[in-house]
Formats: sequence, structure tokens, C-alpha cells
Amino acid sequence: MTRQIRLALRAYGVGGPGQHSLWKDPRVPKNASIDIDWYIAQAKAAEHAKFDALFIVDSQFIDATYPPHYLNRLEPLTLLSAVAVHTRHIGLVGTLSSTYNSPFNVARRFASLDHISRGRAGWNVVTSFDTGTSRNYGLDEHLDYATRYGRALEHVTVVRGLWDSYEDDAFPADVARDVFLDPAKLHPLHHEGEHFKVAGPLNISRSPQGQPVIFQAGVSEEGRNLAAHVAEGIYAPGGTLESTRDYYADIKRRTAALGRDPDHILIFLGAQPVIAGTDAEAHRLSREIFDADNDFPRKLAAFGRAFGAYDFSQHDLDAPFPDVAAHAERSGRTRGTEIVRRAREDGLTLRETVLAFTEYRPSPFTGDPRTVADTIESWFGAGAFDGLNLGFRTHEDLDRFIADVVPLLQARGRFRTEYESDTLRGNLGLPVPQNRWTRAEALR
Amino acid sequence: MTRQIRLALRAYGVGGPGQHSLWKDPRVPKNASIDIDWYIAQAKAAEHAKFDALFIVDSQFIDATYPPHYLNRLEPLTLLSAVAVHTRHIGLVGTLSSTYNSPFNVARRFASLDHISRGRAGWNVVTSFDTGTSRNYGLDEHLDYATRYGRALEHVTVVRGLWDSYEDDAFPADVARDVFLDPAKLHPLHHEGEHFKVAGPLNISRSPQGQPVIFQAGVSEEGRNLAAHVAEGIYAPGGTLESTRDYYADIKRRTAALGRDPDHILIFLGAQPVIAGTDAEAHRLSREIFDADNDFPRKLAAFGRAFGAYDFSQHDLDAPFPDVAAHAERSGRTRGTEIVRRAREDGLTLRETVLAFTEYRPSPFTGDPRTVADTIESWFGAGAFDGLNLGFRTHEDLDRFIADVVPLLQARGRFRTEYESDTLRGNLGLPVPQNRWTRAEALR
Ligand SMILES: Cc1cc2nc3c(=O)[nH]c(=O)nc-3n(C[C@H](O)[C@H](O)[C@H](O)COP(=O)(O)O)c2cc1C
Ligand SMILES: Cc1cc2nc3c(=O)[nH]c(=O)nc-3n(C[C@H](O)[C@H](O)[C@H](O)COP(=O)(O)O)c2cc1C
Repeated sequence: MTRQIRLALRAYGVGGPGQHSLWKDPRVPKNASIDIDWYIAQAKAAEHAKFDALFIVDSQFIDATYPPHYLNRLEPLTLLSAVAVHTRHIGLVGTLSSTYNSPFNVARRFASLDHISRGRAGWNVVTSFDTGTSRNYGLDEHLDYATRYGRALEHVTVVRGLWDSYEDDAFPADVARDVFLDPAKLHPLHHEGEHFKVAGPLNISRSPQGQPVIFQAGVSEEGRNLAAHVAEGIYAPGGTLESTRDYYADIKRRTAALGRDPDHILIFLGAQPVIAGTDAEAHRLSREIFDADNDFPRKLAAFGRAFGAYDFSQHDLDAPFPDVAAHAERSGRTRGTEIVRRAREDGLTLRETVLAFTEYRPSPFTGDPRTVADTIESWFGAGAFDGLNLGFRTHEDLDRFIADVVPLLQARGRFRTEYESDTLRGNLGLPVPQNRWTRAEALR
Repeated sequence: MTRQIRLALRAYGVGGPGQHSLWKDPRVPKNASIDIDWYIAQAKAAEHAKFDALFIVDSQFIDATYPPHYLNRLEPLTLLSAVAVHTRHIGLVGTLSSTYNSPFNVARRFASLDHISRGRAGWNVVTSFDTGTSRNYGLDEHLDYATRYGRALEHVTVVRGLWDSYEDDAFPADVARDVFLDPAKLHPLHHEGEHFKVAGPLNISRSPQGQPVIFQAGVSEEGRNLAAHVAEGIYAPGGTLESTRDYYADIKRRTAALGRDPDHILIFLGAQPVIAGTDAEAHRLSREIFDADNDFPRKLAAFGRAFGAYDFSQHDLDAPFPDVAAHAERSGRTRGTEIVRRAREDGLTLRETVLAFTEYRPSPFTGDPRTVADTIESWFGAGAFDGLNLGFRTHEDLDRFIADVVPLLQARGRFRTEYESDTLRGNLGLPVPQNRWTRAEALR
């Protein structure tokens, strides 16, 4: 069979990154980001088109300068649980930070979603980009990289251990023998690590998926290693064909080097297609979208978020780019470090740096439906991704992609026409992890 | 208008407290406690009958000796969110411990549920009974009473502060003026207290209820004071007419003494009606139910839970009751202390103590439908409760209560025939809390 492209729908409500003014579009419901009916409708449309998953990003810190979709949002697990009972096949992936949450709580909530959805839950593990988050959880300073990623790995390990608390056949519920639970099949965890101490067992049984699917997002060295160790899916940032291929190859290599099957880590590239009747029209539209948000003060605030909501407006715009490397180190090192390096090498002012890093760069998936399908297919063929994590500006744009692009991918044998399974694992071709207590001792 | 009785449905899945062997009943689905369809069906039946709320209890610690409904349970917020989108009027109250959760997280999750349900969320604040819970959250020892209840009060205060982050009209979304958010109407909290430090603001707007409704469960001196300060509903344990009236009067007095309107704290008494065609039949059934679980080793384990899952089987059953007061002090002081005192005063052995505290005591709401309705009405009239928090053994028992008892209460003008409102507050007659930032300064 031809290798298939995976599709996830990233649903934001009122416009994703860089779409600060999308709320003004008359087609966008102003309260979409907190309107569960809006999410259910998106999920149903995506499910009708056989998408693999609905993908919900998250954040836990705002101030008034944040873009609309951050300001007023539903908590991902409550959101997805409501969507679960109005859908039957689509996967439900929720972002949740390992930095400011307890493993026991996280394990419970995703296991619960996995039962409610009958095997469609996924956890996108992030370590929190917004440094301000720490102040909502009692800490003055955001944890540094090493601690955040150290916690993340241990966190996922504990959560997976908790998910295996019950063996699959722990509840015979056998009236004749008067046995509801077979106590030998309930296992405490007794985890004691650097960051967590968790006795277990978890108070919920395994679901049809065995364990929810683990996703990851974060591109630093530490982020990639975390992915190679534990991720089964990755939400990767878009880029050029070259940069995304490099990233793809790097992840697969790291994963294989750890003895894992590289086909069991699927890379979903973030993408915002811009589709119109002709290529020229699509590029005009793309430029229009950019211009609508081409507002310098707003860019400056967005720029500051790569440095932990750093307030750049305190600096002279026309003086050399200030020394903010330490701020990048706490928040998003990868992008921040690149910005600092280039500003220094090219001797840029603050204004020039902001402009250089926010210049117009159209999505590679811009064009008429055929061009978009062609580009998706050629990037896929070139090894840039296993799937796309698609964001759309409006429900109409999603519908257009479904009506005009999906059938082309299907006709070429690149996208499913029917779900293979009722579980997210099943549809992604990922194995059901065997419970650690039933594996041969040597493999544990 | 005649004063109305409130009704909540406490849904367990596979049998509530003292119903260890209910799973053997052929009418009880063995996996009901993790089957979302079971909860949705219960909620719809209760909504059809105009119940005020679905009430979900919780726990975060188990071992193999725990009764079935503890062993395998959905997490309350994911559960209720799924129920929310299949119901329209019934309130959705979830239990969540203030002892091992962060206020920011709790505030988000309930606010999210409140939006998803369009104003029907309630939070039942507990401090965790099971001492083992601490070991699932990194602590060797369960926090003591003073700390747990000190945290609880501060926790609720912070959560309420976070729920007020946005004023009601913070999002004009005015295209002409290019204003999505009015930044003056977004308020950080800057809380710094003994137990929590939370900067805020919360990243979700106020819902139709203003704030989810606060419930509380816990009967010690500290628990009553917490309730008097912050609760709008209480889940109170059942008892004799005398003991429940005393409790009721005590709570109303404490609440009034703090300057609050005692009508704005509604006491829901836990009750498990046993209904049959005649009173005699109902009492026979009640005795049968007791006998089915009249198993000494099981009783001993259940007994130990009042002392923090203390293992009494290590003691000689026929020696004097051991000195376990310190264990009660960490877990459920009220009952534990009474047990210790009586065992000492009456010179009881361990076996005698267990038997004395687990002897047959039928529910006061046992009888034919008329007797049950009469008792409900007379206890209500005598000031024992504002509402009942009803547990049933099976869906059939719920249906019977709805078919045979509810109409009697309605005919007497004691229970609604239509919902008054679409929100839980509206149906409970509780006021919508005005946002603290729009109240006159003096009242904040
Ligand atoms: C494509 C992508 C999506 C992300 N989505 C989220 C998110 O939804 N919420 C969040 O808190 N962090 C998110 N992150 C942030 C990461 O978790 C991480 O904290 C941050 O990127 C810094 O780590 P890094 O340098 O490894 O990328 C995302 C990162 C990437 C690359
Ligand atoms: C009627 C009632 C119901 C309760 N429900 C729960 C519950 O669902 N989960 C929980 O962790 N604790 C529950 N509790 C325990 C209390 O939160 C509290 O920790 C315990 O009762 C000890 O405090 P107290 O002496 O004030 O009652 C409940 C208590 C009562 C009285």
C-alpha cells in the first residue's frame, strides 16, 4: 500500500499564531474559543473527512498583549471530553505541560479521556513556553531547560507506569467465584525519582488503547531527545523544505539510535494552507492576511514572547539589539538564541531585528487546490513529515480544504477514505503497548 | 410559594458506600463506573425528572481492599464535561480535593466546565479523606487537619479571585473601534498567602453563572467553618432526624454569624432510599442488602478507612480496641474520634467495636413510595435538610424513585415540575456573584 499522509486539525477558536486580527473577520464567531459547539462542529467536519486527530494547544499564562486565541480558552481535557461524546473515530490530542502538573493527576485525566472516547486520547507533552506560567504556580522563576526537560521525561515515565497499574484482565467480575478484582493484577508503582515520588496505583483501568498516545512539541536538543525517548507523535514547527527534512531525519535517527522503531514516531508538521481559485489569488490572499497583522507594536509584543513575555518596548528601537540571551534560555531557547546570534552578527538594531524575523513568508501550502495537494505530496515524498497539523482561519477554510484538497490526496492513494480503526493508535498504525506487568521480566 | 426540596443524584457506577457486593446484581453493568454512557443515561433520567444536579464524588487513592466503585473510576471533570454536552438543565457538581491540586488548574477546569455546560458547574471542595493520597503526590504523610483546612479556605479564595479575572464585559469585540479585549477589564490577582502564591490572571472569561457554585463536604469543626465561609451547598452525611437537624441549625447559625444569608447555603443530605411495594417489603429488602455485605473481613477493611486505610487485621480481634486516635487525626477525625471514645468508655474489643459501628441501621427513607415521600417531607419540614443527595443501587431504583416518589412531592408542591433556569445557580435560587472588580471598593 502507498504510504499514507496523516492529518490533524489544530483548532484555535479565534485565529492562531500571527492572526491577531482574525477576530474581525465576520465569519469568525467572537467567542469561538470558548464555544464548545464550535469545537464539536470542527471535529465532526474533520471526522467526516477522516482526519486522524483533533489537536488542542494550550497555555497557562496571559497578559493583555496576548493574541485573542490565548486570552479566553477552554481547558483542553474538558474540551476534548465534550468532543469525545459527539464523535466516534477522530483522535483527541490535548496539550498539557509536564512542568506545572502532577503525574498522578495527568495520568488520571488522560486515562479518563481515553475511556470516555473509547480509545482516542493523546497527550501532547510540552514544558511551557511562557515563563510567566511559573507565577501562576507559586514559583517566581520559570524552571530552566534542564529541569523542565528532566521533569518531562520522568513525568511521562511515571504517567505510563500509572497507566499500567491494572493488567488488562484485572477485573474478572466473576459472580460464581465472587471475584470482582483479581488483586494480583493491581500493581502499585513505588516510583522515587529526582523530580517525583509517586506510590500508585492509579484508580482507573487500561482502555482499549492500552495507553493514550504520547505527542511532544519542542525543538531544542533536549526536546528532540525527549521525543526520541517517549514520543509516538510530534507537533513540529513548519519551515523550509530543507529545514523540515533535516529535522525529520534527525528525529528518526535519534529514535532508531535508542532502539525504537522510527515508524512509531510520527512527525506532524504545523501548516496553515492558504487556498484560492488560482495560485495568484491565493498568494494575494496570503499577503493580505499578513498585512492585516503587520502592526509594529503588536509584533514587538509577539517577539517578546520568545523571550518569556519580555517587554522590548522599554528599549530604544534604533539602538543595537539588547542582550536578552538569558531570557531566551528560560523560555524558547532555540528561536531566541538564533535571534540573538543573528542580531549580533549582522549588527542589527532592535527594530531591524524584529522586522527581519517577522518578514513576509507565505506558507508553502499556498495556491489553488491542486498546487496545495501537489506540494503536500512532494514534501511528504521528500521526507519532510509523516503528517500535517493543519490550522485554518475559519470553518469555511477547513471546509474548502476538505472539499477540494482531501479528495486529490485520496485519489492519489495518499489519504484514507475510511478509518482503519476506532482508536487513535489503530488509525496511526501505532502498536498497543503491552502492560509492563505481563511482559517477560527481562523486557521491563 | 411552598419552600421547595432540592434533589441531587449521586452517581457511582458500581454501588456506593457499604455496597461492596452490588456488582453481583445482574442489573448492574460491571464496568458502569467507567462507562460514560451509563452516566449520561443517569443524568438524562434525572434531568427529565427535574433534579437539580448530578453529583460526582471522588478519591485519589486505592488499594485492592477498596470497594468496587473506588477501584475504577472516571476523573470527575472529564466525566462531567461529557455529560454537559448531552444535557441542558441539570447541574454538574464535581468533587475535587483542595489538598493536592493547584488553584490555577482547578479554577481553569471548573471555569471551562462552566462554559461548556453554559452555566451548570459546581465544585465540591474536599480535603481528601484517604491518607494514602499524599503518597501519590510526593508526600510521605497526609497533611494534618489544620493545614488541609487552611489550604482549603485559601484555595477557594484564590480560585474565586481567578474566576473574576475578566469583568463580564471585558470583550467588546468591537470591529469599528478595533478593540477585541478592553485591557482595563482584565485583572491579575497577585495573591500571596500562607499556602499559595498565584499571580493570575486566569485565561478564561466569566460564564453565565459568574462563578461555579461552591459545595463542601466535611463535618469537623474546621469543615463546618469552611462551609460557613465559602460554601453555597453542602453534601452532608445522613444520620438520625435529631443529628441532622442539629447539624443543619449549626451550619445556618455559623453562616449567619459571618454575615451571610443562611438561605444561600443549601444542605444536601446523603440518602439511599429503599423503596418497595409495601413498607414491610422495603424493610425486608433493606435487611437483605445489609446481609449481602455483612462480611467481617470486609467490614474490618472499611473500618480501617476511617483511620487512613489503617490495617486493623494486624491486631487481635478480641483484645481491647487499639490506640489509633492519631490515625483518625490525619484522616476523618470526627468519626474516628467517636469510635475511639466509645470503645474506651464501653471497654470494647476490636471485634465488638467494629460490630457496634457497623450494625444494621436502615435508611430513614425505607418504605413504599408514600412512606418515603412522607418521610422526606416531614424531615424537610423539621429542618433536617434543604435537599437530598440521592444514591441508588441501580438505574431501575432511580427510575422507581422518579416514577413513584417524585410525583408525590410535586403534587404536594414540594418539588418543581419545570426548571426555573438554565443555570445551576438559577435553579438553586443562588445569586450570581458580582465580579469583585465592579463592586464598590468598600465591599471588595
Ligand atoms: C510546534 C510547537 C508547538 C508548541 N505548542 C505548545 C503549546 O501548545 N503549549 C505550550 O505551553 N508550549 C508549546 N510549545 C513549547 C514547548 O513545549 C517548549 O516549552 C518550548 O518550545 C521551548 O522548548 P524548545 O526550545 O525545546 O522548543 C510548542 C513548541 C513547538 C515547537
Ligand atoms: C458526606 C461527605 C462526603 C465526602 N465526600 C468526599 C469525597 O468524595 N472525596 C474525598 O476525598 N473526601 C470526601 N469527604 C471527606 C472530607 O473532605 C474530609 O476530608 C473528611 O471528611 C475529613 O474531614 P471532616 O472531619 O471535616 O469530615 C466527604 C466527607 C463527607 C462528610
